[in-house]
This record gives sequence, structure tokens and C-alpha cells, in this order.
Amino acid sequence: MTHKTQEPIITNISDLTPEEAKWITLKKIEYTDQVGKARTWETAARKTRGKAGVDAVAMGNVLLHPSRPASTMVVIQYRPPLDSYTVEWPAGLIDAEETAEEAAVREFKEETGYDCRVLSVSPPQAADPGLSSANMQLAMVEVNLSEGDEEPEQRLEDGEHIQRIVVPLTELYDRLVDYSKQERMIVAAKLFHFAAGMHFAQTQKYL
Amino acid sequence: MTHKTQEPIITNISDLTPEEAKWITLKKIEYTDQVGKARTWETAARKTRGKAGVDAVAMGNVLLHPSRPASTMVVIQYRPPLDSYTVEWPAGLIDAEETAEEAAVREFKEETGYDCRVLSVSPPQAADPGLSSANMQLAMVEVNLSEGDEEPEQRLEDGEHIQRIVVPLTELYDRLVDYSKQERMIVAAKLFHFAAGMHFAQTQKYL
Repeated sequence: MTHKTQEPIITNISDLTPEEAKWITLKKIEYTDQVGKARTWETAARKTRGKAGVDAVAMGNVLLHPSRPASTMVVIQYRPPLDSYTVEWPAGLIDAEETAEEAAVREFKEETGYDCRVLSVSPPQAADPGLSSANMQLAMVEVNLSEGDEEPEQRLEDGEHIQRIVVPLTELYDRLVDYSKQERMIVAAKLFHFAAGMHFAQTQKYL
Repeated sequence: MTHKTQEPIITNISDLTPEEAKWITLKKIEYTDQVGKARTWETAARKTRGKAGVDAVAMGNVLLHPSRPASTMVVIQYRPPLDSYTVEWPAGLIDAEETAEEAAVREFKEETGYDCRVLSVSPPQAADPGLSSANMQLAMVEVNLSEGDEEPEQRLEDGEHIQRIVVPLTELYDRLVDYSKQERMIVAAKLFHFAAGMHFAQTQKYL
């Protein structure tokens, strides 16, 4: 890891009541199931969902350069919930008045410094449906680079420390497996599943 | 939707304190960041993690049959956090004394009725790293069917209503997009990303 002066360290973990929490909350859902029986379910939810009705957008990105292999940029950042560095595609919450596509362009610029072109936006997906109501959309984006382009500056918010790594698409799956072996590092499930799907399509003998 | 007698309906949603919650909890993490500044982060966490150190396992499965195309089984179930039916690969929590591989075989049998062979187990992946500490592993499993095999009985726990759908691998991505258009249905992000990765590998023009 580069570009930081010390390892982050957790100093305290305490229970948080739903009233105190600013970003997320804990809810008890009471419902009547398919056979008419009353049941309960515990769930976490984000408090920040805006008019798009979707919490977040992730940017599956392809960097095209005249003399380098087609690549994708992943970001590595310290994530307190896991006390680990995560490897993810750039992503962010959709602001109250934004569309997913607008958020994709804005967040991609902030985290990577690059202007991108949105090729497609997926339907909403359930981030972790047994645990939370959180949902997200996957925007596939493309960045066209010229021969002499230098890596642009990020526009990070205060407190964001995000390292950018460019990985050739042909190496993505193997690189994620390698990152997973490093201490205090974990790959985000969505990125890992996309890479595993690519790897499966290229190596399976079923089709 | 078949095999049910009525649509599930939510009757009440209320705040839940971490003390009341049995399955999940809300925590405030205080930490010192890379530049030495004190910060806080709100996170959800499962209370059920066992000795494996991983919360859950999902089964990326391939069904092989002598006269049918290679397929995968997805499951559709009502998920109260989203008040929707989710399309997912079979998955479940890893019990306290289980390995991920043992949980994969057990959960696959319970949800699908099939005995499976585990081909590989991924490293731990962060389920939704901005929101929670939840983690999971992806087990790739194979089921070998014979010509006359009938669909086996599920072994569901009380309260589980899980519909099984067999989808040819070549149709997976398009079927997930179609499901996403149906009212009160949402595809889980991990499954969608795997299928999107397959689709990308098969249709992209970059490599």
C-alpha cells in the first residue's frame, strides 16, 4: 500500500441505536407469509435513499489506450466495517436528486479523475437481500485515452483515501484471487462475481 | 409465482435496538485514519458468524443432464427487507461448526433437493463493504443427472418458501434482465454480476 502515512486502526466499537445512527438503521419487519402465518425479519437499511429509489451505483469500467491492453480500474480503500482494505470497482451513493447515470459519471470522476462514457445501466439489484434493503445498479462505462495521457488527479472528499489500480481485463480474475491472499485485504463480492463470471465463460467446458 | 397461497404482506416496520436484535446488530466504529485523524463509521453486522469466520456461502451451480443443455438452478423467494421476490443462487449461513464446503453441500440439498459436488470455493468476499461486515464465499458446484431423474423434494425449514427455476447457462443473463422487469422482483447483485461477467466475456470486443 502506498500514498498513506499510517495503517488505520480501530479504537472503539459500540452499539448504535437506530435513533443515533445517521446513515443506516435497524428495523424489525412484521409480515404475513405465503401460508398466512405472522413472522418477523430483522433488516438493516440505508437512510439516504433519494428520488432514484436506488442507494448506489458501481462503475464497471473499461480503459482503452492505443498501445496498452484493454484494462479496468479498481480502487483499494480501508473499509472500517471489515477492518480491511477492499478491492472494488469505483462506486458511490446516488444523491437525492440524481439519476444512476449522473451519479456514475460524477463518482467516477471523483474517485478516478477520469471522464467516462456510460454504455449501459443495469436494472436495480439487491446488494445483500438476506441482510438489508440496500440496492444498487451497475453502470458499464468506457474511458478512451490517448497516447500521451497522464493519470489525472482524483477529486476525493475529505477523509477519502482511495488507491487506483489499473488491471488488464485478461488478468482481472487472477489478480483478484491474488489480492484475496494478502493480509488485511478482501475483494468486494460484486466485483469478484463479475470476474468469476468472465473466468467461467472463458474456461468452462459446458457450453 | 406458483406453490403459494397468498402474497406476503408487511404489517408493521419498527426500529430495532441492537439489544433486541437476534440476528444482526448496528455498531459505531471509531477509528484513526491514514493521516491520523479520528473518524467514525456506522456498520451493520451479523451476530451468527461461526468458527469458519465467514457468514455465508452461495452455490454457483451447473446441472448436467445427458439430453438437456448445461443449466443452473436459481431460487426465488420472498425477502422481507426488500418486500420483493429475489432471484438468487442457493445460499445460506455457515453454521458455527461447519466449513464453507460442508455448508454448501448441506444448503444446496436443503434448498434444491440435489446432491452436489463442490468444484471450488472462492476466497472470502465482502458482501456489501460500505454498509456491513458481512462476508461470503462462492462455491462452484456440479450436479450430474441421469436421463430419467425426477426433480427431488426440497428439505426446507419451517417458513421457507423457495421456488426452484432451471435456466440454461446460455440464457442466464437475458433471463435475469427479464426477471428484473417483473413487478415485485429483483435479482441479487452477486448473481447478476456473475451473469454480467459471463455476458461481457462473450460479447465484448476489447480482448
